[in-house]
Amino acid sequence: MNRLPRVICSKVLYETKWISLKELAYKDLKDVERSYITVERTTRRADLNLDAVIVLPLLKSTLETQAVLIRQFRPPLDNWTIELPAGLIDPNESIESTVAREIKEETGYTVSNIVSIGPTIANDQGLTNGNCRFVVAEVEKDSNGLALQELEETEMIEVLHVPISKLLETLHLREKEFGDSIDARLYSFALGQQFRI
Amino acid sequence: MNRLPRVICSKVLYETKWISLKELAYKDLKDVERSYITVERTTRRADLNLDAVIVLPLLKSTLETQAVLIRQFRPPLDNWTIELPAGLIDPNESIESTVAREIKEETGYTVSNIVSIGPTIANDQGLTNGNCRFVVAEVEKDSNGLALQELEETEMIEVLHVPISKLLETLHLREKEFGDSIDARLYSFALGQQFRI
Repeated sequence: MNRLPRVICSKVLYETKWISLKELAYKDLKDVERSYITVERTTRRADLNLDAVIVLPLLKSTLETQAVLIRQFRPPLDNWTIELPAGLIDPNESIESTVAREIKEETGYTVSNIVSIGPTIANDQGLTNGNCRFVVAEVEKDSNGLALQELEETEMIEVLHVPISKLLETLHLREKEFGDSIDARLYSFALGQQFRI
Repeated sequence: MNRLPRVICSKVLYETKWISLKELAYKDLKDVERSYITVERTTRRADLNLDAVIVLPLLKSTLETQAVLIRQFRPPLDNWTIELPAGLIDPNESIESTVAREIKEETGYTVSNIVSIGPTIANDQGLTNGNCRFVVAEVEKDSNGLALQELEETEMIEVLHVPISKLLETLHLREKEFGDSIDARLYSFALGQQFRI
């Protein structure tokens, strides 16, 4: 394969259970060899070339459809972050079953309909190959009218209900008034939603 | 400071010029000490608590406003990525001057008006503290009617003009027909823009 530019080899600099720090050698457009440091998850599903799903869960209500967001403590930020429910895809798990599992665990709701599954998107391509797919799904309470989280022991997650038309406004408010961090994908979606030329 | 949860200390596991791999110790909501591996850029502007800006440049035209996007080779993905012009904030540089510099370098256009600067947003908070601000800016050609890129030697960047109403459609097309990768922030913005309940 002679296309340019391309990565020609990689060397692991340091590896933990979850993260691998690598030095890549690549050839640029002029066939000059250069070096790049990157970070990869060790859990990547190679058959899907995918790490994770992020989900916008929509809850229909009598007044207005609500986005079911989560507020999660994130050690890398040493802060609580307002974000879309999300999760890594386990081995032998489909995208749809990951969505259903993560929504149940993190929000307590049951997925009733998957509206759309986007293409694979890169989270921070200057730093990592980390990627995900953006899924939109309708959710509902269980037959007892409940929505109980099933969190893992290490997860610290609160559930927020936000009217879909107030998404951007709510994110600005959470950051200013509560000092919460804001997830970039969620913020970008909310900005696009309110975007007018 | 006794708030819980919180990070209590960190240890560098491996450091390069650009990236630091760290092990954090944090206390959870029940005061139990736990560990977390994270990645940080070594270039973070501590006074701004900010790594980078990402910019949606808008070019007014007689027909329809165009988004000026870039297609950049990204070694971590070993692929070309459709993304928003973006860049790290240099020491002693304001957000506005970073925006103007990066837009000039990567697209050749001159920023004529900064429409909005969003809050600090987290790119991939399960993996890294990496963050940015989402800026919307109007751009124009220079007085000679030109827009010439000023790329650094290692940058491989093409410029794409996309009618603002065709953003999502174009991203899907680039991925399917050309095999390009898609930046998560750009995709999320485009999805939000087309979002209808």
